[in-house]
Amino acid sequence: MLNELERLKETNISTEEIFSGNILHVVRDTVELPDESRATREVIRHIGAVCVIPVTDEGKVVIERQFRYPIDQVITEIPAGKLDSPKEDRLEAAKRELREETGYTADEWIDLGTFYGAAAYTDEKITMYMARGLHKGKQELDQGEFLDVYEVPLTELVEDVMKNRIPDGKSEIAILKAARYLGL
Amino acid sequence: MLNELERLKETNISTEEIFSGNILHVVRDTVELPDESRATREVIRHIGAVCVIPVTDEGKVVIERQFRYPIDQVITEIPAGKLDSPKEDRLEAAKRELREETGYTADEWIDLGTFYGAAAYTDEKITMYMARGLHKGKQELDQGEFLDVYEVPLTELVEDVMKNRIPDGKSEIAILKAARYLGL
Repeated sequence: MLNELERLKETNISTEEIFSGNILHVVRDTVELPDESRATREVIRHIGAVCVIPVTDEGKVVIERQFRYPIDQVITEIPAGKLDSPKEDRLEAAKRELREETGYTADEWIDLGTFYGAAAYTDEKITMYMARGLHKGKQELDQGEFLDVYEVPLTELVEDVMKNRIPDGKSEIAILKAARYLGL
Repeated sequence: MLNELERLKETNISTEEIFSGNILHVVRDTVELPDESRATREVIRHIGAVCVIPVTDEGKVVIERQFRYPIDQVITEIPAGKLDSPKEDRLEAAKRELREETGYTADEWIDLGTFYGAAAYTDEKITMYMARGLHKGKQELDQGEFLDVYEVPLTELVEDVMKNRIPDGKSEIAILKAARYLGL
Protein backbone atom coordinates (compact mmCIF):
# COMPACT_ATOMS: atom_id res chain seq x y z
CA MET A 1 0.00 0.00 0.00
CA LEU A 2 1.21 3.50 -0.85
CA ASN A 3 2.13 5.74 2.06
CA GLU A 4 0.42 9.09 2.61
CA LEU A 5 2.98 11.17 0.69
CA GLU A 6 2.99 8.76 -2.27
CA ARG A 7 -0.81 8.94 -2.44
CA LEU A 8 -1.07 12.72 -2.11
CA LYS A 9 2.15 14.58 -3.01
CA GLU A 10 2.38 17.10 -5.87
CA THR A 11 5.86 17.53 -7.36
CA ASN A 12 7.23 20.73 -8.89
CA ILE A 13 8.00 20.49 -12.62
CA SER A 14 8.65 24.18 -13.36
CA THR A 15 8.14 27.65 -11.91
CA GLU A 16 7.07 30.80 -13.74
CA GLU A 17 7.73 34.10 -11.96
CA ILE A 18 4.64 36.32 -12.22
CA PHE A 19 5.14 39.28 -9.89
CA SER A 20 7.62 40.36 -7.28
CA GLY A 21 6.08 43.10 -5.13
CA ASN A 22 6.87 44.64 -1.78
CA ILE A 23 4.71 42.18 0.15
CA LEU A 24 3.59 39.52 -2.31
CA HIS A 25 5.66 37.34 -4.59
CA VAL A 26 3.48 35.47 -7.09
CA VAL A 27 4.52 32.36 -9.02
CA ARG A 28 2.67 29.96 -11.28
CA ASP A 29 4.08 26.45 -11.01
CA THR A 30 3.47 23.36 -13.06
CA VAL A 31 3.20 20.28 -10.85
CA GLU A 32 2.87 16.54 -11.30
CA LEU A 33 -0.06 15.00 -9.41
CA PRO A 34 -0.07 11.56 -7.75
CA ASP A 35 -1.69 10.02 -10.88
CA GLU A 36 1.14 11.52 -13.03
CA SER A 37 -1.17 14.05 -14.68
CA ARG A 38 -0.14 17.73 -14.58
CA ALA A 39 -1.74 20.83 -13.16
CA THR A 40 -0.85 24.47 -12.49
CA ARG A 41 -0.62 25.98 -9.01
CA GLU A 42 -0.81 29.74 -8.44
CA VAL A 43 1.15 30.49 -5.30
CA ILE A 44 1.80 33.59 -3.20
CA ARG A 45 5.18 33.47 -1.47
CA HIS A 46 4.99 35.51 1.76
CA ILE A 47 7.69 36.38 4.29
CA GLY A 48 5.62 35.24 7.29
CA ALA A 49 3.95 37.03 10.16
CA VAL A 50 3.29 37.09 13.88
CA CYS A 51 0.31 38.09 16.01
CA VAL A 52 -0.16 38.74 19.71
CA ILE A 53 -3.13 38.56 22.05
CA PRO A 54 -2.15 40.84 24.98
CA VAL A 55 -4.23 40.04 28.08
CA THR A 56 -4.09 42.43 31.06
CA ASP A 57 -4.14 41.36 34.73
CA GLU A 58 -7.83 42.37 34.71
CA GLY A 59 -8.59 39.89 31.86
CA LYS A 60 -8.90 42.57 29.18
CA VAL A 61 -7.45 42.26 25.68
CA VAL A 62 -5.56 45.17 24.11
CA ILE A 63 -7.06 45.16 20.64
CA GLU A 64 -7.16 47.36 17.53
CA ARG A 65 -9.51 48.84 14.98
CA GLN A 66 -7.77 49.01 11.61
CA PHE A 67 -8.84 49.82 8.06
CA ARG A 68 -8.11 46.95 5.69
CA TYR A 69 -7.99 48.15 2.10
CA PRO A 70 -8.66 44.76 0.38
CA ILE A 71 -12.05 44.49 2.11
CA ASP A 72 -12.75 48.27 2.35
CA GLN A 73 -13.69 47.99 6.03
CA VAL A 74 -12.47 48.87 9.51
CA ILE A 75 -12.23 45.61 11.48
CA THR A 76 -11.29 44.51 14.99
CA GLU A 77 -7.93 42.72 15.09
CA ILE A 78 -5.29 41.71 17.57
CA PRO A 79 -1.84 43.32 17.09
CA ALA A 80 0.06 41.67 14.22
CA GLY A 81 2.65 42.28 11.58
CA LYS A 82 4.98 40.82 9.00
CA LEU A 83 8.50 39.68 9.78
CA ASP A 84 11.19 42.26 8.91
CA SER A 85 13.25 39.52 7.25
CA PRO A 86 12.68 35.78 6.64
CA LYS A 87 15.18 34.94 9.40
CA GLU A 88 13.85 37.36 12.02
CA ASP A 89 13.18 35.66 15.33
CA ARG A 90 9.40 35.33 15.59
CA LEU A 91 9.20 36.16 19.28
CA GLU A 92 11.30 39.30 18.74
CA ALA A 93 9.00 40.31 15.88
CA ALA A 94 5.96 39.82 18.13
CA LYS A 95 7.54 41.99 20.86
CA ARG A 96 8.30 44.69 18.28
CA GLU A 97 4.79 44.68 16.80
CA LEU A 98 3.13 44.83 20.21
CA ARG A 99 5.35 47.71 21.30
CA GLU A 100 5.03 49.70 18.07
CA GLU A 101 1.28 49.25 17.57
CA THR A 102 0.06 49.51 21.18
CA GLY A 103 3.00 50.84 23.26
CA TYR A 104 2.84 47.76 25.53
CA THR A 105 5.70 45.54 26.63
CA ALA A 106 5.15 42.23 28.46
CA ASP A 107 6.86 40.09 31.11
CA GLU A 108 5.49 36.76 29.92
CA TRP A 109 5.16 35.40 26.36
CA ILE A 110 3.18 32.21 25.79
CA ASP A 111 3.51 30.48 22.38
CA LEU A 112 -0.03 29.69 21.12
CA GLY A 113 1.22 27.93 17.99
CA THR A 114 1.92 28.48 14.31
CA PHE A 115 -0.60 28.13 11.52
CA TYR A 116 -1.09 28.69 7.79
CA GLY A 117 -3.80 31.21 6.92
CA ALA A 118 -4.52 29.86 3.43
CA ALA A 119 -2.37 26.83 2.61
CA ALA A 120 -4.25 26.36 -0.69
CA TYR A 121 -2.44 29.33 -2.27
CA THR A 122 0.13 30.88 0.09
CA ASP A 123 2.98 29.75 2.32
CA GLU A 124 2.28 32.58 4.81
CA LYS A 125 3.01 31.15 8.25
CA ILE A 126 1.69 33.02 11.29
CA THR A 127 3.02 32.48 14.80
CA MET A 128 0.71 33.47 17.65
CA TYR A 129 1.60 34.53 21.19
CA MET A 130 -0.29 35.49 24.30
CA ALA A 131 1.37 38.34 26.21
CA ARG A 132 0.84 38.68 29.99
CA GLY A 133 2.29 40.99 32.63
CA LEU A 134 1.72 44.06 30.46
CA HIS A 135 3.40 47.46 30.93
CA LYS A 136 2.06 50.51 29.17
CA GLY A 137 4.47 52.62 27.08
CA LYS A 138 4.41 54.83 24.04
CA GLN A 139 2.91 53.73 20.71
CA GLU A 140 5.30 54.13 17.71
CA LEU A 141 3.36 53.50 14.53
CA ASP A 142 5.17 53.00 11.22
CA GLN A 143 4.80 55.80 8.71
CA GLY A 144 1.49 55.36 6.91
CA GLU A 145 0.08 53.13 9.67
CA PHE A 146 -3.19 54.27 11.28
CA LEU A 147 -5.09 52.33 13.94
CA ASP A 148 -7.11 52.79 17.14
CA VAL A 149 -6.18 50.82 20.27
CA TYR A 150 -8.62 49.97 23.08
CA GLU A 151 -9.37 47.28 25.67
CA VAL A 152 -12.18 44.72 25.82
CA PRO A 153 -12.74 41.89 28.33
CA LEU A 154 -11.64 38.54 26.87
CA THR A 155 -14.98 36.98 27.88
CA GLU A 156 -16.79 39.64 25.81
CA LEU A 157 -14.55 38.93 22.81
CA VAL A 158 -15.31 35.19 23.06
CA GLU A 159 -19.00 36.06 22.83
CA ASP A 160 -18.25 38.35 19.87
CA VAL A 161 -16.46 35.49 18.10
CA MET A 162 -19.35 33.07 18.73
CA LYS A 163 -21.82 35.70 17.44
CA ASN A 164 -19.71 36.36 14.32
CA ARG A 165 -18.78 39.91 15.19
CA ILE A 166 -14.99 39.38 14.72
CA PRO A 167 -14.46 38.75 11.00
CA ASP A 168 -10.66 38.39 11.26
CA GLY A 169 -9.47 34.78 11.17
CA LYS A 170 -6.27 35.07 13.24
CA SER A 171 -8.10 37.10 15.90
CA GLU A 172 -10.81 34.43 16.17
CA ILE A 173 -8.17 31.73 16.72
CA ALA A 174 -6.25 33.81 19.28
CA ILE A 175 -9.36 34.74 21.28
CA LEU A 176 -10.68 31.16 21.44
CA LYS A 177 -7.24 29.66 22.19
CA ALA A 178 -6.43 32.24 24.87
CA ALA A 179 -9.85 31.72 26.51
CA ARG A 180 -9.40 27.96 26.59
CA TYR A 181 -5.81 28.33 27.80
CA LEU A 182 -7.00 30.55 30.68
CA GLY A 183 -9.95 28.25 31.45
CA LEU A 184 -12.60 30.84 30.41
CA MET B 1 -13.49 64.89 16.47
CA LEU B 2 -13.03 62.72 13.37
CA ASN B 3 -15.10 59.56 13.19
CA GLU B 4 -13.48 56.12 12.83
CA LEU B 5 -13.62 56.00 9.02
CA GLU B 6 -12.24 59.54 8.65
CA ARG B 7 -9.34 58.63 10.96
CA LEU B 8 -8.53 55.30 9.31
CA LYS B 9 -9.86 54.97 5.74
CA GLU B 10 -7.60 54.48 2.70
CA THR B 11 -9.07 55.70 -0.60
CA ASN B 12 -8.34 54.19 -4.01
CA ILE B 13 -6.52 56.52 -6.43
CA SER B 14 -5.68 54.03 -9.18
CA THR B 15 -5.50 50.31 -9.91
CA GLU B 16 -2.82 48.46 -11.88
CA GLU B 17 -3.72 44.95 -13.08
CA ILE B 18 -0.83 42.58 -12.37
CA PHE B 19 -2.04 39.03 -12.99
CA SER B 20 -5.31 37.32 -13.77
CA GLY B 21 -4.96 33.62 -13.03
CA ASN B 22 -7.39 30.74 -12.55
CA ILE B 23 -7.63 31.26 -8.79
CA LEU B 24 -5.80 34.49 -8.00
CA HIS B 25 -6.31 37.94 -9.43
CA VAL B 26 -3.51 40.31 -8.39
CA VAL B 27 -3.70 44.12 -8.49
CA ARG B 28 -1.41 46.86 -7.23
CA ASP B 29 -3.40 49.90 -6.15
CA THR B 30 -2.31 53.39 -5.23
CA VAL B 31 -4.23 54.68 -2.21
CA GLU B 32 -4.54 57.91 -0.28
CA LEU B 33 -4.00 57.53 3.47
CA PRO B 34 -5.84 59.47 6.20
CA ASP B 35 -2.97 62.03 6.37
CA GLU B 36 -3.28 62.57 2.56
CA SER B 37 0.04 60.84 1.83
CA ARG B 38 0.04 58.02 -0.73
CA ALA B 39 0.97 54.35 -0.53
CA THR B 40 0.68 51.21 -2.68
CA ARG B 41 -1.40 48.18 -1.74
CA GLU B 42 -0.80 44.76 -3.29
CA VAL B 43 -4.10 42.91 -3.25
CA ILE B 44 -5.25 39.42 -4.17
CA ARG B 45 -8.85 39.36 -5.36
CA HIS B 46 -10.37 35.93 -4.58
CA ILE B 47 -13.78 34.47 -5.42
CA GLY B 48 -14.49 33.38 -1.83
CA ALA B 49 -14.75 30.02 -0.14
CA VAL B 50 -16.67 27.84 2.30
CA CYS B 51 -15.66 25.23 4.86
CA VAL B 52 -17.58 22.64 6.85
CA ILE B 53 -17.00 20.88 10.14
CA PRO B 54 -19.10 17.69 9.90
CA VAL B 55 -19.80 16.24 13.36
CA THR B 56 -21.32 12.74 13.63
CA ASP B 57 -23.90 11.67 16.22
CA GLU B 58 -20.99 10.04 18.09
CA GLY B 59 -19.14 13.39 18.34
CA LYS B 60 -16.57 12.55 15.66
CA VAL B 61 -15.42 14.98 12.99
CA VAL B 62 -15.11 13.85 9.36
CA ILE B 63 -11.76 15.36 8.45
CA GLU B 64 -9.19 15.18 5.67
CA ARG B 65 -5.48 14.79 5.03
CA GLN B 66 -4.51 16.82 1.98
CA PHE B 67 -1.24 17.81 0.32
CA ARG B 68 -0.86 21.58 0.05
CA TYR B 69 1.64 22.51 -2.60
CA PRO B 70 2.50 26.04 -1.33
CA ILE B 71 3.77 24.60 1.96
CA ASP B 72 4.97 21.22 0.56
CA GLN B 73 3.19 19.29 3.33
CA VAL B 74 0.24 17.00 3.96
CA ILE B 75 -1.94 18.68 6.60
CA THR B 76 -5.16 17.92 8.47
CA GLU B 77 -8.06 20.10 7.30
CA ILE B 78 -11.82 20.20 7.45
CA PRO B 79 -13.66 19.91 4.09
CA ALA B 80 -13.52 23.20 2.17
CA GLY B 81 -13.55 24.68 -1.29
CA LYS B 82 -13.89 27.76 -3.44
CA LEU B 83 -17.20 29.05 -4.70
CA ASP B 84 -18.01 28.01 -8.28
CA SER B 85 -19.04 31.61 -9.07
CA PRO B 86 -19.06 34.86 -7.06
CA LYS B 87 -22.84 34.64 -6.74
CA GLU B 88 -23.06 30.98 -5.74
CA ASP B 89 -25.10 30.47 -2.58
CA ARG B 90 -22.60 29.75 0.19
CA LEU B 91 -24.67 27.06 1.88
CA GLU B 92 -25.16 25.25 -1.45
CA ALA B 93 -21.39 25.44 -2.02
CA ALA B 94 -20.76 23.96 1.42
CA LYS B 95 -23.20 21.09 0.74
CA ARG B 96 -21.46 20.42 -2.59
CA GLU B 97 -17.96 20.42 -1.11
CA LEU B 98 -18.94 18.13 1.76
CA ARG B 99 -20.62 15.69 -0.63
CA GLU B 100 -17.84 15.69 -3.22
CA GLU B 101 -14.91 15.49 -0.81
CA THR B 102 -16.31 13.09 1.79
CA GLY B 103 -19.49 11.56 0.33
CA TYR B 104 -21.54 12.84 3.28
CA THR B 105 -24.85 14.74 3.21
CA ALA B 106 -26.35 16.36 6.31
CA ASP B 107 -29.82 17.07 7.78
CA GLU B 108 -28.78 20.12 9.77
CA TRP B 109 -26.53 23.05 8.77
CA ILE B 110 -25.43 25.54 11.44
CA ASP B 111 -23.85 28.81 10.27
CA LEU B 112 -20.63 29.33 12.31
CA GLY B 113 -19.89 32.71 10.72
CA THR B 114 -17.88 34.36 7.97
CA PHE B 115 -14.30 35.57 8.29
CA TYR B 116 -11.41 36.97 6.28
CA GLY B 117 -8.31 34.76 6.25
CA ALA B 118 -5.82 37.56 5.52
CA ALA B 119 -7.51 40.96 5.27
CA ALA B 120 -4.10 42.67 4.94
CA TYR B 121 -3.73 41.47 1.35
CA THR B 122 -6.77 39.51 0.15
CA ASP B 123 -10.55 39.90 0.09
CA GLU B 124 -11.04 36.12 0.40
CA LYS B 125 -14.13 35.63 2.55
CA ILE B 126 -14.73 32.20 4.07
CA THR B 127 -18.10 31.06 5.41
CA MET B 128 -18.04 28.25 7.94
CA TYR B 129 -20.76 25.70 8.74
CA MET B 130 -21.21 22.85 11.15
CA ALA B 131 -23.03 19.88 9.59
CA ARG B 132 -25.01 17.50 11.82
CA GLY B 133 -27.27 14.52 11.08
CA LEU B 134 -24.77 13.02 8.65
CA HIS B 135 -25.53 10.37 6.04
CA LYS B 136 -22.74 8.49 4.33
CA GLY B 137 -22.68 8.42 0.51
CA LYS B 138 -20.16 8.20 -2.30
CA GLN B 139 -17.13 10.53 -2.55
CA GLU B 140 -16.84 12.33 -5.94
CA LEU B 141 -13.48 14.10 -6.07
CA ASP B 142 -12.76 16.67 -8.78
CA GLN B 143 -10.22 15.61 -11.38
CA GLY B 144 -6.75 16.20 -9.95
CA GLU B 145 -8.02 16.23 -6.36
CA PHE B 146 -6.44 13.73 -3.96
CA LEU B 147 -7.23 13.46 -0.26
CA ASP B 148 -7.75 10.95 2.55
CA VAL B 149 -10.90 11.11 4.70
CA TYR B 150 -11.15 9.78 8.25
CA GLU B 151 -12.90 10.44 11.57
CA VAL B 152 -11.52 11.85 14.83
CA PRO B 153 -13.39 12.69 18.07
CA LEU B 154 -13.98 16.46 18.31
CA THR B 155 -12.57 16.47 21.87
CA GLU B 156 -9.31 14.97 20.53
CA LEU B 157 -9.13 17.64 17.80
CA VAL B 158 -9.58 20.39 20.41
CA GLU B 159 -6.56 18.98 22.23
CA ASP B 160 -4.66 18.83 18.92
CA VAL B 161 -5.45 22.52 18.30
CA MET B 162 -4.30 23.52 21.79
CA LYS B 163 -1.08 21.50 21.32
CA ASN B 164 -0.43 23.09 17.91
CA ARG B 165 -0.89 19.91 15.90
CA ILE B 166 -3.44 21.44 13.45
CA PRO B 167 -1.54 24.04 11.40
CA ASP B 168 -4.55 25.05 9.27
CA GLY B 169 -6.16 28.32 10.37
CA LYS B 170 -9.77 27.71 9.25
CA SER B 171 -9.73 24.23 10.82
CA GLU B 172 -8.53 25.67 14.14
CA ILE B 173 -11.40 28.17 14.14
CA ALA B 174 -14.00 25.55 13.18
CA ILE B 175 -12.83 23.03 15.80
CA LEU B 176 -12.77 25.58 18.64
CA LYS B 177 -16.09 27.18 17.60
CA ALA B 178 -17.86 23.83 17.18
CA ALA B 179 -16.57 22.63 20.56
CA ARG B 180 -17.78 25.77 22.31
CA TYR B 181 -21.09 25.62 20.43
CA LEU B 182 -21.61 22.03 21.60
CA GLY B 183 -20.48 22.83 25.15
CA LEU B 184 -17.31 20.69 24.95
